[in-house]
Formats: sequence, C-alpha cells, structure tokens
Amino acid sequence: MKDQAIPKATVKRLPLYYRYLRILNTAGKTKVSSTELSDAIQVDSATIRRDFSYFGELGKRGYGYDVEDLMNFFGKILNDDQLTNVALVGVGNLGSALLKFKFHQSNSIRVSCAFDIKEDIVGRIVDGIPVYPMDSMVEQIKLQHIEIAILTIPAQEAQQVVDQLVNAGIKGILNFTAARLSAPDNVIIQSVDLTNELQTLIYFLHHNYEAQ
Amino acid sequence: MKDQAIPKATVKRLPLYYRYLRILNTAGKTKVSSTELSDAIQVDSATIRRDFSYFGELGKRGYGYDVEDLMNFFGKILNDDQLTNVALVGVGNLGSALLKFKFHQSNSIRVSCAFDIKEDIVGRIVDGIPVYPMDSMVEQIKLQHIEIAILTIPAQEAQQVVDQLVNAGIKGILNFTAARLSAPDNVIIQSVDLTNELQTLIYFLHHNYEAQ
Repeated sequence: MKDQAIPKATVKRLPLYYRYLRILNTAGKTKVSSTELSDAIQVDSATIRRDFSYFGELGKRGYGYDVEDLMNFFGKILNDDQLTNVALVGVGNLGSALLKFKFHQSNSIRVSCAFDIKEDIVGRIVDGIPVYPMDSMVEQIKLQHIEIAILTIPAQEAQQVVDQLVNAGIKGILNFTAARLSAPDNVIIQSVDLTNELQTLIYFLHHNYEAQ
Repeated sequence: MKDQAIPKATVKRLPLYYRYLRILNTAGKTKVSSTELSDAIQVDSATIRRDFSYFGELGKRGYGYDVEDLMNFFGKILNDDQLTNVALVGVGNLGSALLKFKFHQSNSIRVSCAFDIKEDIVGRIVDGIPVYPMDSMVEQIKLQHIEIAILTIPAQEAQQVVDQLVNAGIKGILNFTAARLSAPDNVIIQSVDLTNELQTLIYFLHHNYEAQ
C-alpha cells in the first residue's frame, strides 16, 4: 500500500475534486472537462491534469472525464466508500462545534465517541454522540477500533493525551491545539492552528502577496 | 512592501517560531540554539536556519539566538505589535466557538464584530462581541476599517457574501466554508476545510505516508 509517489499537494486536492464531482453528479451532469473543473475549484487545469496523471488514464483526450466514474474512483481512493469512525477528545467550545459539524454530509466520516473531563457532560449523549470520561478513552478507542482522533483540548495537556492515544492504537490525529506534538513515525499528526492561519493571512496582506 | 522572495512555506512557519520564542521569553530564557528550537517545534534545524536566513543576520554562529530580540523581530514582521481587528461572518456552531476562541492570548488579533441573520442574536453582545445584522455588514466593516474576515456561513451563501465583503474593503478572508471562492487578485482567501483535512488524513493513513 506504499505509494509515496503521489505528492502531498496532490493528495490535498483530491477531496476538492471529489467534492465537486459529487455536486456535478447530483446535478445530473455526466461529462466534465478539466477546464470546467478548473473554473469551479480554482485550480489551474495543468495542475488538474498532472494530478490526475498520477492515477493513470482517467479520461480521453478531447472528450473530458466521465463524472460518475471519476467520482467513484476518487471516492474509493479517499476511502469514502466505507465509514470511518473518529474520536473527538475535548468537548469545549470548538469540540462542541465539531460534534455538530456536518463533514460535507459525506456520511463516510463520523465522530462516533467523544471524551472530556467535565462532569456535567460525561456519561451523556451530546448531539447524538456519547461523551465518555477521559479515563476510559484508551479502553473505548481500543474497543471501537478507532484509528483517528480530533484533538480539541488545552495545549498544555495535548502531549500527554497524544501519548495515551498512540498507546490506544490511534494512527492519525487532527490537532487543533497550538502544541507541537511528538508521536512515533507511523502516527500522522495534521495540525490546524487557527491563530497561525490568521497570522500568516495578516502577513500576506501586509506584504502584498498574490492571492493563492 | 513587496517581498515575494520569502516562500509561503517559510511564512507559514513564522507564527510557530514566534509563539515558541514568546514561551521561552516568558520562561526567562535569553538564548536559544537552532537545535533547541528544532526539537521544540519539530522542524529540522536546517530548515530553521534557511528560514531565518531570508531575514538577514539574526544570530551569531555558535552562539545561538537572542530570544527577546528574535521574538520582537518576528512579532514586528507578523504585525503582532499592533492590534488587528477581524470580522466574523456567521455565528453558528463554529462561529460561536471562534467568538470564544483565544488566539494564543496574543492580544493582537481580536474579533471586533460579528454578523448573522438570526434574530435571536442580532443586536446582542455575545461573548463580549457585538453581533450586527447582515444588512449592516458592509457599513460596519467600512466604518471600522476592517480588512480581515472569518467566514463561517453555509457554503451556498459564501460567494455572495464574499462579493459584499470585497466591496466593503476586505483584503483577507479565512474561509471555513467548503465553497471555493473567487475574489479579485488583491484579496487573499485562505481556506480551512475540516472535511478535507480529515479526508487527506485518512488517505495518508491508508497509504502509509510518513508522518509530517
């Protein structure tokens, strides 16, 4: 299953392609050209063609792509044809918002359990999702065979919780804390730092960078 | 003010450096080596030295960096020495969480106004921040000279609101909707798509990518 050949930048665009193909398919469109795709998702068509070329022959020259075939192809690549259960650690403001978050209504990603320390929510079902105490986190994650966790806890507790998550078998972490986390090489940590996003946006703005 | 010479990847690491330098400074540390920085923020030290080199001579070889000088330098570059007011458009689940979000307690980024259509919150002060109706958005943004907006509204309304924001003088948008947005070249749109983040994480996990 090793295919490091596909660049990360390409991988990050796959969900975009997939999402737009689903919209087209729902709208009843059967063919799409790379130019149309390009206009809709704001990625230049040369990039789209190069991205697609990593996956072999996906369309015929001058004919465009078959929407349904391509949608199914990317859906399979992105594991969207099967349910991925995800654990949410930390049901504070951001965590609560993520509990309610519709992940593009894709139906294939689902927060199936949450963990917190606050007595008023632990043991309850919040927005349809059971909230367990932190001290049963390792057990529940093992029981439920969960491999992905979303981390929305205070930064100073993040590393300790990551160590526990790794012990529980977690292989991927979406980190919303400002902490820089260490984990073994086989665990992927993807960080979304909202302050960093705003600070870099402010920097670009003050230094006249071109948009995208 | 044009310095496109600094790569975007470097710019995206500046907030990390800055944040860690602030932590060191608060802890009373006066010197730091690139190796120490590297261990703390999980960026290899060659990358750190290359990043720093874009800004000229920031330290002496074999001596390390002066924490306070470097912190102030990056603070200035990131405009953290002055307040940036930001507008929040859409006070739903995610928007409400962002109203409460502490942007690293940096005190230099502040959501100063929010906009929504829901009658039960419009005209009220929520978590210290006034929530205005959408139809006064353009006027308020102009009045308050706001240049940055955070977008947390339904995707299908996003483009229309972006057009209004651009008319109001907004120069940077942090887009949390799944919509791909168009704006003039002088407006920077930075997208944070949580579903995409999870989908790429799932992809990396199933295809055995190396962490980071």
